[in-house]
Amino acid sequence: MEDKQPIRIIPLGGVNEIGKNMTAVEYADSILVIDCGLMFPDDEILGVDIVIPDVTYLVEKVDKVVGIILTHGHEDHIGALPYVLRQINVPIWGTRLTLGFARAKLDEHNLTDLAEFHQIEPGEHFEIGPFAIETIRVSHSIPDGFAMAIRLPSGIIFHTGDFKFDQTPIDGRLTDFAALARIGAEGVLLMLTDCTNVEKPGHVPSERLVGKMFRQVFAEASGKIIVAMFASNIHRMQQVFDIAAEFGRKVATVGRSMAENMVIAEDLGYLKVPPEVKIRVEEIPELPASQVVVMTTGSQGEPLSALTRIAMDDHPIVRVEHGDMVIISATPIPGNEDLVMRTINHLFKRGAKVIYDPIAPVHVSGHGNREELKLMLNFIRPRYVVPVHGEYRHVAKYVELAEEVGIPTENVFALEVGDVLEVGPFGAQKVAKVPAGDVFVDGIGVGDVGDVVLRDRRHLAQDGIFIVVVGIDRNSGEIVAGPDIISRGFIYLEEAEDLMQEARQTVVETIEHLAVDAATEWATVQSDVRSAVAKLLYNRTRRRPMIVPVIMEV
Amino acid sequence: MEDKQPIRIIPLGGVNEIGKNMTAVEYADSILVIDCGLMFPDDEILGVDIVIPDVTYLVEKVDKVVGIILTHGHEDHIGALPYVLRQINVPIWGTRLTLGFARAKLDEHNLTDLAEFHQIEPGEHFEIGPFAIETIRVSHSIPDGFAMAIRLPSGIIFHTGDFKFDQTPIDGRLTDFAALARIGAEGVLLMLTDCTNVEKPGHVPSERLVGKMFRQVFAEASGKIIVAMFASNIHRMQQVFDIAAEFGRKVATVGRSMAENMVIAEDLGYLKVPPEVKIRVEEIPELPASQVVVMTTGSQGEPLSALTRIAMDDHPIVRVEHGDMVIISATPIPGNEDLVMRTINHLFKRGAKVIYDPIAPVHVSGHGNREELKLMLNFIRPRYVVPVHGEYRHVAKYVELAEEVGIPTENVFALEVGDVLEVGPFGAQKVAKVPAGDVFVDGIGVGDVGDVVLRDRRHLAQDGIFIVVVGIDRNSGEIVAGPDIISRGFIYLEEAEDLMQEARQTVVETIEHLAVDAATEWATVQSDVRSAVAKLLYNRTRRRPMIVPVIMEV
Repeated sequence: MEDKQPIRIIPLGGVNEIGKNMTAVEYADSILVIDCGLMFPDDEILGVDIVIPDVTYLVEKVDKVVGIILTHGHEDHIGALPYVLRQINVPIWGTRLTLGFARAKLDEHNLTDLAEFHQIEPGEHFEIGPFAIETIRVSHSIPDGFAMAIRLPSGIIFHTGDFKFDQTPIDGRLTDFAALARIGAEGVLLMLTDCTNVEKPGHVPSERLVGKMFRQVFAEASGKIIVAMFASNIHRMQQVFDIAAEFGRKVATVGRSMAENMVIAEDLGYLKVPPEVKIRVEEIPELPASQVVVMTTGSQGEPLSALTRIAMDDHPIVRVEHGDMVIISATPIPGNEDLVMRTINHLFKRGAKVIYDPIAPVHVSGHGNREELKLMLNFIRPRYVVPVHGEYRHVAKYVELAEEVGIPTENVFALEVGDVLEVGPFGAQKVAKVPAGDVFVDGIGVGDVGDVVLRDRRHLAQDGIFIVVVGIDRNSGEIVAGPDIISRGFIYLEEAEDLMQEARQTVVETIEHLAVDAATEWATVQSDVRSAVAKLLYNRTRRRPMIVPVIMEV
Repeated sequence: MEDKQPIRIIPLGGVNEIGKNMTAVEYADSILVIDCGLMFPDDEILGVDIVIPDVTYLVEKVDKVVGIILTHGHEDHIGALPYVLRQINVPIWGTRLTLGFARAKLDEHNLTDLAEFHQIEPGEHFEIGPFAIETIRVSHSIPDGFAMAIRLPSGIIFHTGDFKFDQTPIDGRLTDFAALARIGAEGVLLMLTDCTNVEKPGHVPSERLVGKMFRQVFAEASGKIIVAMFASNIHRMQQVFDIAAEFGRKVATVGRSMAENMVIAEDLGYLKVPPEVKIRVEEIPELPASQVVVMTTGSQGEPLSALTRIAMDDHPIVRVEHGDMVIISATPIPGNEDLVMRTINHLFKRGAKVIYDPIAPVHVSGHGNREELKLMLNFIRPRYVVPVHGEYRHVAKYVELAEEVGIPTENVFALEVGDVLEVGPFGAQKVAKVPAGDVFVDGIGVGDVGDVVLRDRRHLAQDGIFIVVVGIDRNSGEIVAGPDIISRGFIYLEEAEDLMQEARQTVVETIEHLAVDAATEWATVQSDVRSAVAKLLYNRTRRRPMIVPVIMEV
């Protein structure tokens, strides 16, 4: 009886959002954490650098947490490690490349000594506390990723990881279809599944298609070739090196994160580069353009990235010249489209020929399309399904897809972050909610930017700030200094002198009207000044800057 | 000889950008202005409501300006009229519906009496000063648009307007292919052409396809149907009314701009609605859901729009319930994708089935694809071409397309706003640059938000503001009030008391170190306080809030 305890599935991130993936699987007195990712903030979260999961629940139960297992090495699966390990120092499991990336990340934060790493392989069986785990190789846009079966007395939990079924992968390492079929035949209680590309029909084309397109571009090009891509796409880097070698070109890597990832991947044997193909960036000017390939980050148009700087002619070495070819080998993440298009406009202006997504298929996704999601369902045939790694619309479309292959709608659970789903031979149901959500990291501050600070930033961004400074003699009630006005982000001051004069006048009148004496609350003065000035400014400009009255008692 | 003076083409907007279309055509002592549009700001232009063209050049030569001709009634072609007419009050030419929309716009600004309107028809010949104009009907996503030939002694200038070639338009009014062919045969010196969709292969499907998809949705739906679209797409409104009537449903319109446009279009006979199909929003709750269609704005996920409010369950009347269908009949404008997707997520969460672009073709563009752009080139066979209504990448792709149909690359001019292209029988060349660019409208302020204000808004948005207030006795050099600190958008204050204490201490030490006396410049005190505080805050938080030291002499 004790053996058949319910299993609790608790997403702490990665549901109703693409990013900061983290799921807790709880059984009896043990918690296993799957992934530990970050998310990049959208435009609304002004000034915040990254978003990480709130792990309050894990901190509270830290004695139960047996470890963190990382399905692969992408930022949205490992990026929160430096922050989370400071709060719960538990051992980490992952494959060679994944741990290589995780180590580098902890190094940056001077935390390497903190972590206890356990290296595993896809296809291995091992135990973490009561969790008997089998990892299964799957294809993705980074090598060495896996799905996993977690065997517990109450049933098998299956986690797909981020996956697609590339039938002709660059490294020849196929998804282990036989293992998937075998585990499906064993009977799976619940599957946690990637659903990112549920909106897309058919299959994702093989990564080899990208190589084919690259070859066409290389064959046509007479100037430099610049390839922008995600910094962790090792297979694509491999293709760039291979094809550059075929065409007698040399490859320079620009962008810190890409260069670092390349070193790790090469050291660990995931990237094979003939030494004569690699050059340093400084060597680019010494070679004829027709022999140069620049491999770079910035495929999302990030303002400070190498490609953006190159496009703006702001890079110390790499120049774009007439006749150069630029391949944007990525799809813009929703919200980044205008940044990417702006970069492309600048590249065209400099005379480059730019090859990008609507023009030619120079990118494939790392996530399987509908037919792949269906095939996974048909391999595993789980009783219950929890779609992860998708926004709500993906989950909604996934429910339809699962129904098409015979999974009843009521067996697919659209969870929210912090929901506790209890599952076992008896069935499955949401039973509770634990503390969970977003923690903002800004600079070195973790969690010190919250809703109030963000609301203020949005207000300041919209109409700026208007500061009124006035010194009042408490005894006489008279203004003895100011009123002075300081405004930022509100109006072009040189043409608003009349308005400033009116504002000063309004402040004086408001204070005189109040007849300040020893009994007056300064808060009343502030509040009256704020209202009077706000009204004046709105009437004159239809803007609502943040108004800060500074009343000094002198 | 005097007859053959050069024609000057001066784009004041609409090149290297999609929006604020405006082109000046100058001949001898006369200037004709084509279109007068606005542009909606991107995310970087914080707090700005709209962007209009800088018409300094027209103001300087106002005696020469013979009029403004509007090719159609979209905001990006007529939206700047209220601002521009205040600066240059000249007559306006346009078709019935276009003038209807223009009048409504001027009404809003209480400017109707200011304007002199001349109503014309597609297919009409008329003169504006020395410009002999022929308008030619073309298809677009709003009725009553035209292309035009401007006949001058030095040659014909042809402007395509915004166009596509819908072979089965909803109103049965085809593009006047015969006129295009005739004008081409006459010999065109220069063509200004739409190039928006040059990245897209083939033809844009007919608007009728949208109706076909609507019918499929209506046939399936058992609850309410909500259709979100652009507020000016009269043909699509017509289809919604027609199909609703077929299926025995009533249509309520939500969203002020859509309701206003509908009234205008109906009054002028461009929209035919059987009275029994139309209901008021207030009547929705009285009808069974299966008899209701809601037609609404907000297809771009705009935060204050009707659809967004409906999705957030924040609309006074319209609720989304399980089983309702929502059609997003528009494509997100680049930069709006995440807003649109957020709205879709919320709609799914409320139990609606949402039909949107990657899922089903419930929208077609108003701009012709590559084959249509080629066909236009082959009708007109101009000697020179200026692509308008596109970003730089569209222009670059258009150069390739024009070359495919035999227009030499050097005859296609990629102009920038303010460039003067002189063209005549002698040839064509860029000869000058006139003042031109963006003017920001924020609230009722026109042009009082510029680069400095925007830079401040961006700074404030990023890390907030940190105000240090201190009163100093000039004679003794002593601090007699404060230092007080006010911060907004920087850090969660309740957990930063230590930092605030450190900051106050830093201010005290900095001022003591300066040993203020009668000779000290206040600017020096401010500057030293700013640097010292900035350094402290950066060291402690890695953030750079805007620091405003307020030093009061008391």
